[in-house]
Amino acid sequence: MFFEGSEKRVEVFVSSSTDPLRLLGEKFWAKIVASANAKIVSKMSNDFCDAYLLSESCLFVWDDRFLMLTCGTTTLVDAAILFTEKLGRAAIVSASYQRKSEYFSHLQTSCFNDDVLRLRRYLAGAAYRIGHLDTHHHYIFTSDSIHPAGVIKSNSELLMYHIKGAAADYLRCDKQSSQGIRDMLELERVFVNFTFDDYLFDPCGYSINGLCGDKYMTIHITPQEESSYVSIETNSDFEFCPFSALLSKLQPQSWDVIGFNSTIITDDFPPYLLVASCILPLNDNDTVQFNQYQQLTSEVLLPERL
Amino acid sequence: MFFEGSEKRVEVFVSSSTDPLRLLGEKFWAKIVASANAKIVSKMSNDFCDAYLLSESCLFVWDDRFLMLTCGTTTLVDAAILFTEKLGRAAIVSASYQRKSEYFSHLQTSCFNDDVLRLRRYLAGAAYRIGHLDTHHHYIFTSDSIHPAGVIKSNSELLMYHIKGAAADYLRCDKQSSQGIRDMLELERVFVNFTFDDYLFDPCGYSINGLCGDKYMTIHITPQEESSYVSIETNSDFEFCPFSALLSKLQPQSWDVIGFNSTIITDDFPPYLLVASCILPLNDNDTVQFNQYQQLTSEVLLPERL
Repeated sequence: MFFEGSEKRVEVFVSSSTDPLRLLGEKFWAKIVASANAKIVSKMSNDFCDAYLLSESCLFVWDDRFLMLTCGTTTLVDAAILFTEKLGRAAIVSASYQRKSEYFSHLQTSCFNDDVLRLRRYLAGAAYRIGHLDTHHHYIFTSDSIHPAGVIKSNSELLMYHIKGAAADYLRCDKQSSQGIRDMLELERVFVNFTFDDYLFDPCGYSINGLCGDKYMTIHITPQEESSYVSIETNSDFEFCPFSALLSKLQPQSWDVIGFNSTIITDDFPPYLLVASCILPLNDNDTVQFNQYQQLTSEVLLPERL
Repeated sequence: MFFEGSEKRVEVFVSSSTDPLRLLGEKFWAKIVASANAKIVSKMSNDFCDAYLLSESCLFVWDDRFLMLTCGTTTLVDAAILFTEKLGRAAIVSASYQRKSEYFSHLQTSCFNDDVLRLRRYLAGAAYRIGHLDTHHHYIFTSDSIHPAGVIKSNSELLMYHIKGAAADYLRCDKQSSQGIRDMLELERVFVNFTFDDYLFDPCGYSINGLCGDKYMTIHITPQEESSYVSIETNSDFEFCPFSALLSKLQPQSWDVIGFNSTIITDDFPPYLLVASCILPLNDNDTVQFNQYQQLTSEVLLPERL
């Protein structure tokens, strides 16, 4: 029943002289997705963005950039490289590639250092690890190029580990439905005016994309006991209220917040120990912040028989 | 500069009709050690025990049992199997094999499940993982056989991660000496009446064995920044006073205590969050306890440039 929920993440900005990325069409993007060993399972669009749900996570395509997350044992670096080869190095203004700590890193086909070695054949850039190897950590590669002035993008990620309580039980049961999950997490209330597209995996697991103008959100749920993991990423600027709401519903034992040019507001978080934190300037425009939190209550561990 | 400090651990008890294990001689044990890809670097003895320091950790041989710890990328399961083949299955009363979470598990030549699969060809037994995969955890295999009544053994381990302060700085400098480390950790004061044998590795790293009657202690220090790890194991029954002393000297960011038929006393520990705990009965005689602690102060992470 083990599934690696932890996502790899790539975001690429193209130059203003490049044809709008949405015009490349679904066939193009299906090839990019396939190169990472994933598949498109659903698509929604608005005036700004085509949002794809994938067999492993998601892909958002705007005219000037794309963002792709893939979990499991997918090879997202192949997608990044294929895109660079198809459009040519000159089309790329800036790119970032990220990985997180994984439950079973030895099951992956490459480690972050391997991936960066390959990316650097195309793109010069700096790579870092934030956080210790024996607990949650985050790898980030950013190309040396800088966005044109005035287009600073921000987003925030919340990564939740070891969820419990009624919502977690529901996500693990064999009777859940997409609408049931939306209702339970009150997504319509928290993400007002968003349009959603979601997918329920068999036997469990759930992904949802949401769009509202130029705002996006994406949630991916791996509910399996012993390796449960839920992530949300959004560029909404409503001060982390969805993060607090999700934390209170899903009651994770520990969680990380990654802010990219955004401020981490913890006012409504459940009681926590801030285990560790880091603020890392990536270039003149961009700063990434990594905060690692732990619930204040002790967990009684159940031994896993092997 | 990375070195995997995390140890694998095997302990085997032989039947009373088996020749005393110490009579097998150093040549025999050198072969057992070599099969795990380690070497003997030093030896001390008292009336009860031959205590070897290894290129990767240690080996203690009593007449009725042996205990071997090996770190790095050693293959301790090979040593356990070679011993079983040399003496024959019938000589073995009980055995346990353990691994801990590793900084870089993907650099190991096998995972715990692989090792247990091989061990089970020789010994029936139960295997468990205690603790989540995204943080410190502990694997234990114990054979189904039970010690003869009345020979319940106990021991305790303290595993410290991310040490800091003056002692950590000294352990990382290029001017340390064995006596300097003993003095700094006040080992002679804490382990009264013990005889010691220690070894300073190049460029850094330190191991020490200690014996006092039928009591033993062993400390292994991997001081390297970013993957620092210090372990101590002992069967001394002086209520964890050495653990508190080491915690106060080495100031680890987090630490685990594993008690085998022993009680974990935390009175003099530095302020902590007990992140998680588990008490696992292994059979009618033996119980293992695993406690995971985190310092209450937040750590400011330094990004590691890759």
